Amino acid sequence: MTLDLYDKHRPSLEAAISACRDRRYFSLFPETPDRHRGGAEAQAEGRARYAAALNRPLELDQPGALGLAAAEVSPYTQQPLGIEYPHANPDTLFALGSRAMNSWAAASVQTRLGVCMEIVDRLYERVFDTAQAVMHTAGQSSLMSYAGSGTNALDRGVEALAYAQMAMSHVAPAARWERQFGSTLIPLQKTYRLVPRGVAVVFTCATFPTWNAYPAMFANLATGNPVIVKPHPTGVLPMAIAVREFREVLAASGFDPNLVTLCLDTIEEPLGKVLVKHPQTAIVDFTGSARFGAWVEANAWPALCFSETSGVNTVVIDSVDDLDAVIKSLATTMSLFSAQMCTSPQNIYIPKGGITTATGRVDASEFGERLAAAMKSLAADGKRAGAILAAIQSPGTPQLIDEVQERGAKIGRVLLESSAYAHADFPQARTRTPLLVQVDAGAAGRALYGEERFGPIGFVIHCDDRDVALEQATRDAKQAGAITAFLYSTDETYIERAERAYSAAGAQLTINLTGPMPLNFAAAYSDYHVTGLNPAGNATLTDLAFVASRFRITQSRRLVKDS
Amino acid sequence: MTLDLYDKHRPSLEAAISACRDRRYFSLFPETPDRHRGGAEAQAEGRARYAAALNRPLELDQPGALGLAAAEVSPYTQQPLGIEYPHANPDTLFALGSRAMNSWAAASVQTRLGVCMEIVDRLYERVFDTAQAVMHTAGQSSLMSYAGSGTNALDRGVEALAYAQMAMSHVAPAARWERQFGSTLIPLQKTYRLVPRGVAVVFTCATFPTWNAYPAMFANLATGNPVIVKPHPTGVLPMAIAVREFREVLAASGFDPNLVTLCLDTIEEPLGKVLVKHPQTAIVDFTGSARFGAWVEANAWPALCFSETSGVNTVVIDSVDDLDAVIKSLATTMSLFSAQMCTSPQNIYIPKGGITTATGRVDASEFGERLAAAMKSLAADGKRAGAILAAIQSPGTPQLIDEVQERGAKIGRVLLESSAYAHADFPQARTRTPLLVQVDAGAAGRALYGEERFGPIGFVIHCDDRDVALEQATRDAKQAGAITAFLYSTDETYIERAERAYSAAGAQLTINLTGPMPLNFAAAYSDYHVTGLNPAGNATLTDLAFVASRFRITQSRRLVKDS
Repeated sequence: MTLDLYDKHRPSLEAAISACRDRRYFSLFPETPDRHRGGAEAQAEGRARYAAALNRPLELDQPGALGLAAAEVSPYTQQPLGIEYPHANPDTLFALGSRAMNSWAAASVQTRLGVCMEIVDRLYERVFDTAQAVMHTAGQSSLMSYAGSGTNALDRGVEALAYAQMAMSHVAPAARWERQFGSTLIPLQKTYRLVPRGVAVVFTCATFPTWNAYPAMFANLATGNPVIVKPHPTGVLPMAIAVREFREVLAASGFDPNLVTLCLDTIEEPLGKVLVKHPQTAIVDFTGSARFGAWVEANAWPALCFSETSGVNTVVIDSVDDLDAVIKSLATTMSLFSAQMCTSPQNIYIPKGGITTATGRVDASEFGERLAAAMKSLAADGKRAGAILAAIQSPGTPQLIDEVQERGAKIGRVLLESSAYAHADFPQARTRTPLLVQVDAGAAGRALYGEERFGPIGFVIHCDDRDVALEQATRDAKQAGAITAFLYSTDETYIERAERAYSAAGAQLTINLTGPMPLNFAAAYSDYHVTGLNPAGNATLTDLAFVASRFRITQSRRLVKDS
Repeated sequence: MTLDLYDKHRPSLEAAISACRDRRYFSLFPETPDRHRGGAEAQAEGRARYAAALNRPLELDQPGALGLAAAEVSPYTQQPLGIEYPHANPDTLFALGSRAMNSWAAASVQTRLGVCMEIVDRLYERVFDTAQAVMHTAGQSSLMSYAGSGTNALDRGVEALAYAQMAMSHVAPAARWERQFGSTLIPLQKTYRLVPRGVAVVFTCATFPTWNAYPAMFANLATGNPVIVKPHPTGVLPMAIAVREFREVLAASGFDPNLVTLCLDTIEEPLGKVLVKHPQTAIVDFTGSARFGAWVEANAWPALCFSETSGVNTVVIDSVDDLDAVIKSLATTMSLFSAQMCTSPQNIYIPKGGITTATGRVDASEFGERLAAAMKSLAADGKRAGAILAAIQSPGTPQLIDEVQERGAKIGRVLLESSAYAHADFPQARTRTPLLVQVDAGAAGRALYGEERFGPIGFVIHCDDRDVALEQATRDAKQAGAITAFLYSTDETYIERAERAYSAAGAQLTINLTGPMPLNFAAAYSDYHVTGLNPAGNATLTDLAFVASRFRITQSRRLVKDS
């Protein structure tokens, strides 16, 4: 039956592998809810299941529960979800995972891949459940929680499966080897086995849990490793749903569901360090803050560590053709999900002397004012604001915005003040319009913009010239970490210089992009996410290095019989 | 000119890649000195150059020298080599390496691979120099220092280049991607760049420097990273020769020779920890003791760490057809280079009740006595002893042998006493015949055999039965580390069990092998060396994981023009 699953999903996997090789556009899923195979009914059912799940214990059917815990509050209603989850002893979960590993590791690579693809299919079936869960824990918009946290996240999961298959199929299962030793020919039959490392712990973050979790979970599972998922305590539901679906498909395929378990902690009693230092932890996949991420990276040994943290994403403006188009793209991207994405731009560097445009010179202050105006008008449009800005995940974020606004007013100029806006569908939503501050590049400003300020906070930074702009922007990436970067220039020699500089700084550069695509959109199978060359994380979605060390190779050899 | 080098070596590289994929026998080099392309003349010249190098400063033409240092003593003559080497400030070497990286990283993958293959060719040209250097620092026999430390080591280097090429060519250099956003088609041109991590530090060990150094040096260099080689202070010359040849070929190819430098330290003032914790260290390749290796692994972050340390390699005897053949293979392998190889067996587990052979039952004591007798007769044959046992690298080893012999006599039975033997060609050589001790598997014995006893020290361990034997042997591997393992059994179900158990313990298993091939012979392109599943090291020669994370991928993207 399980080999049937591989056959069933083989065309999808092969197409995914081919896309990974040539990096062209590919997706297994239509990207809007209306084209979901379950139609409007599936969407209604997902919403209904979410509503029915509130204010009661979640059925997870996972052994080792010590009790229940819950801490989730919807950013849209600001009401507790009231869902209680089994709170398990980590030692129990490690023991269960280790025990479950044996038969899973003994299964063929194709069997494991078939089961994993069946899980993908199931998660797609239930993508509306996940979307509701993400929306009401992370605060994402309805559309983003469907596409970004649903179908796009699943594509990143399939991409990880494709890489796992490529890396594992790179190893020959057997070989005949022969060599002369003196006058004797020694023919050996060699057998090579793929062996998992052991239990993997997958940390997920509060604002975008599935997008990193799926690749990590599937990369681990495909290579034979059990997975313990440790969600952020304020964003458990999306991962509880995922764990439940993983477990159900594993069990239905004849494997031990304890290959995937949920480990809950609370903000008061965090388990992160316990899990990282647990003697049975073989792999850690971490998404979260740069500060704890650095601790995880430094302390994970002997476990492997794959991390994505955060950083300061930069924009450099040198010269443009159509300034309106640039402003529109920047305003939208910096507003998208209230800049609570690891790819959201924060620091815009612009030469003091202004920039050239097709319609003449625009000075730096005017640029900032026009950007602020565009952001303001976007936030003022009730319906659009909700779809783009969405809600604020953490109650700490509005506080941070106010602090930065106050400090910004002292050392620079507040181009756009932040305030709550009225969400059209959720009047109680925790919302904030973007803050935009103009500062000089010098030390006083740098104390403010030189690190990540999480949330809808942007800086327009006036520099002496474009060389200083590029130098500062790439220094931000190298020092504070960066995943993305954005450049506007009509000068090809400057573009070339910027490409080299950002490459060295390890930030993925988008050049002169305008139009309806969010500037920070990262496409599975095509865009490499995180380079590992700066503090924003050490692992890339997805390259061979993301999967190649999750399994090991053992071998045995003996004389060929009857030779 | 440098692309010519790629064309020149392309057939060799392609053949190596093909061998890595199907793991069949392959070598770029004839394996005996008489078939070297330079003939007897090359051998004579190599010897002459070695003799001429003694008792004077070595010309390395490397900047940053602070003075000279030397600490080498030939295990064959027990006289200092008297060669002085430039002793550089590590900060200087990191600065030089970083500066050299830019143009090297900007060169194409093919250019880098071509230059690296040309270095391989040069090292083969000078393989007799290396052989002499290894012989008179490590104490290897003339043949092993030529084949094991020369041609086989170069094959492992080429294997690393083959994997580097496979991993790097896996990344598309560019792609055209397009997707609909709303009603607009967004076509993007994406460019992907391979970016090196930074300066790599390669630690080499005293007994077998080149075999791990070449793969690490070439893996780093091919992926764009500069290399600082830190040899064991008692085994500098082989690496000084290598560094010199690397530098000459790099310079001749138009690159900065400071891509490869030598960093010398002394036993009194070791630099190991300084190099591992240096802020510019991006990669550490470590070969050496398990104790320092564990420190390196735990402390290398944020640098990557690839390690091979050591362990307790085991033999399990269950049943055999031809006991004489087994005894002969074991005696030879356990004597080879006085068991100073990371693959040498140490612990032989045998059921108390004895074993079945084609000619009847042989009890455990008799097995041990016959093995001791075979070792003794091998050591007594002056000419053969020198060729097989060779010399003892460290003055500490004879001391260790005597200690173990004394303790062994108290808790077990000394089957074969160790003593110096007279080397036919080098009467002053530091030599020792193997020690073989019979012990019971219990705690008293385990205190002695449960860890690596480096040098010609073996244990015949009496167990209750073959299940206990297998359990203990695989526990040795899991707890103390192991690279190799050996099994003799005529029972296929037991063999299958052992294959699974050793696979889980991460030791490479050789089954029922007899004949002229040394049991622990590891073939480039075919045998995976070190699994990473036990404390004997975390890196495998060679798999994708050995190369895939040594470079990173950056990208830039922009709208396709005129679309």
